[in-house]
Amino acid sequence: MHGDSLAVAQRSLGDPSIAYPLWPPMTRGCPATSTPEIAYPVEVDYAYDKVQAGLFDREIGPDLARWAPLLPPLHAPTLGEGGTPLVEIEGVFVKDESRNPTWSHKDRLNRCTVSGALGAGAPGIVAASSGNHGASAAAYAARAGLPCVILASADSPPAIGDFIRSYGAVVLPVPAAERRPLMRRIVDELGFHPVSNLSVTHTGHGFGPEGYKTIAYELHRQVGVPAAVFVPTGYGELIYGVWKGFTELRRLGITSATPRMFSCEPAAGGPLARALATGLPAVSVEVRESLAYAIDCPVNGYRGVVAVRDSGGGAVLSTDEEMAAAQRDLARRGLWHELSSAAALAGYRKLGERFDGPVVCVSTSSGFKDLGVGSTPTVPLDPSWPVVREVLRARGI
Amino acid sequence: MHGDSLAVAQRSLGDPSIAYPLWPPMTRGCPATSTPEIAYPVEVDYAYDKVQAGLFDREIGPDLARWAPLLPPLHAPTLGEGGTPLVEIEGVFVKDESRNPTWSHKDRLNRCTVSGALGAGAPGIVAASSGNHGASAAAYAARAGLPCVILASADSPPAIGDFIRSYGAVVLPVPAAERRPLMRRIVDELGFHPVSNLSVTHTGHGFGPEGYKTIAYELHRQVGVPAAVFVPTGYGELIYGVWKGFTELRRLGITSATPRMFSCEPAAGGPLARALATGLPAVSVEVRESLAYAIDCPVNGYRGVVAVRDSGGGAVLSTDEEMAAAQRDLARRGLWHELSSAAALAGYRKLGERFDGPVVCVSTSSGFKDLGVGSTPTVPLDPSWPVVREVLRARGI
Repeated sequence: MHGDSLAVAQRSLGDPSIAYPLWPPMTRGCPATSTPEIAYPVEVDYAYDKVQAGLFDREIGPDLARWAPLLPPLHAPTLGEGGTPLVEIEGVFVKDESRNPTWSHKDRLNRCTVSGALGAGAPGIVAASSGNHGASAAAYAARAGLPCVILASADSPPAIGDFIRSYGAVVLPVPAAERRPLMRRIVDELGFHPVSNLSVTHTGHGFGPEGYKTIAYELHRQVGVPAAVFVPTGYGELIYGVWKGFTELRRLGITSATPRMFSCEPAAGGPLARALATGLPAVSVEVRESLAYAIDCPVNGYRGVVAVRDSGGGAVLSTDEEMAAAQRDLARRGLWHELSSAAALAGYRKLGERFDGPVVCVSTSSGFKDLGVGSTPTVPLDPSWPVVREVLRARGI
Repeated sequence: MHGDSLAVAQRSLGDPSIAYPLWPPMTRGCPATSTPEIAYPVEVDYAYDKVQAGLFDREIGPDLARWAPLLPPLHAPTLGEGGTPLVEIEGVFVKDESRNPTWSHKDRLNRCTVSGALGAGAPGIVAASSGNHGASAAAYAARAGLPCVILASADSPPAIGDFIRSYGAVVLPVPAAERRPLMRRIVDELGFHPVSNLSVTHTGHGFGPEGYKTIAYELHRQVGVPAAVFVPTGYGELIYGVWKGFTELRRLGITSATPRMFSCEPAAGGPLARALATGLPAVSVEVRESLAYAIDCPVNGYRGVVAVRDSGGGAVLSTDEEMAAAQRDLARRGLWHELSSAAALAGYRKLGERFDGPVVCVSTSSGFKDLGVGSTPTVPLDPSWPVVREVLRARGI
């Protein structure tokens, strides 16, 4: 399975001339270029000259091993991630990532991070997350038979706690400020492999964004090269992964163009937009209240800067109200996705630009993940026909 | 899109020599064979001699139109249903139907029922459901631009109410006994098309189970002909659909064998098991308390009798505890599915029989649909290292 990988090294995004061995996976960014203020991620490099031409001709389907040559060695077994459909709504293509094993895009990332943990011989994994990432990491660890610890916050939706615990993970609800110190301690004292960020600005796991590249490979088969791709953006791993996939297709001569990449952040924060506006690789911002908790980050990762800048794209900020309107419109056409997912469509609308080619919005997860879902009690209705008829009439029926 | 269908008629399951025109879809069973005590469903018949040999050679993927020749005309647009992965766990293959557009198998059925409503020119659809079926019907109606009314019960999980309403459906929470009379009235007075049952024993919508056939077509490509298929069973539309798909593969000369079909009902009820034991086409039973609300039915449909009897299969009953154990074991290997889904694995274990060939458990939906999910409040943990270390030690870390 993992014998097919053409991965050869880890390479610094801070200085691409610096390469490190492929193992062990680097989980604190590039030591040579990072400073106390800015951390630069690493990525995986491949023997691109050995990629066989037929790789991109076969049908897509669930299991990232389909793309094994251009992924890190896949030591972790599959849960059937990827191969998600593209649904056209109002002339925009929605890439429905809620159709993954734990119903979010994070499964593509965690097939790769848990593979990293297994390849490194770690006795378990640890992550800080109160949402999609924690559940996905827990599921892939469970599938691989690896213990998993999730540092969650006490104010995440209770359904998400049930979700993560179901996979057998140990969930520790601790204050936000304690999460990173505890994660470091679990890494240092127990030897657990971290699958979320440990550095001052976001670098995360060097193998993770490789999984997201497969979205680009799939989009290429489904719709060709889009003119623009709108991506809900927290730390920028997703937008970078999709961008990297398109650059590889061009590098390999499969395509000649690449899409413009647009990062879609909540207006309540928006560190990537700020970093791009100021020309800095990463910045911290104050984060105001937002219900888009999955992407409401106080600091960006350098990966997002690379994706937006090198693709000639842009950064868009949307308010919670704009995201809620997009979320409602998606649901009224059959896709009930979380508020953070709707940041992509909200961003496309807010930008208001016309593109000469397909526009893709990446939708990350289902509506079940939102805060407040299930908190409205059901009020029984008087079942007499005049009452029912009046309720229907009020709704235009 | 729907021009490809080879559907030619509706045919009675009560007496297969009786055929009706294909339109309009029959939603109260076969009038010629049904009695005041037993209703017999109809199914769709095709010009099987016109099926082209290559149909079963192409890759599977999300969109039932892939199988259009052997489905009713697909007037309703796709949301990317079907093409779900098969995940091997403990030597058993789990068909993960949580990977559909509304995260349950019902999407296969509702692409077909909403197509029926559109083809019949109905001004809307109506269904009685407090779960997967209601949400799926609402989503396909929304996608097709058709108004939708869902008669729900007041004690269904509140998250399910949010789920169904998100698609713009009118949800009417009324007592169980009022649901069918109100549905008839909405059908009779407003001309809405019913997409759930209106008859004394279950017949449902004649087009619906056709969508489930595609599970058999996909399994055939994924694993060949299984020795046994275990199916969570409420009214028996799913088990019948899967069975019909395998009989068609044999009839068309694609395969020579068919699997044994096992219905998996909660021990709290189990009308199909009773019907099979007594040799009756359908029976009513008293239903005790069960958390497997999606399949806890007081009456069976004749379709389930046909599938189990003709396939040489059997009926298995599992307690809530047995289903909960199976659910936990699936989650501990990476699949968090609803309690009703776990009836299949629970049934396989309970039967305790060895099969000479692949065993498939159909898993219908995600763990988010269960009663009680999200009702456990999160208790913050003291983040000091000795406390955390002790918590981890207690969990074997």
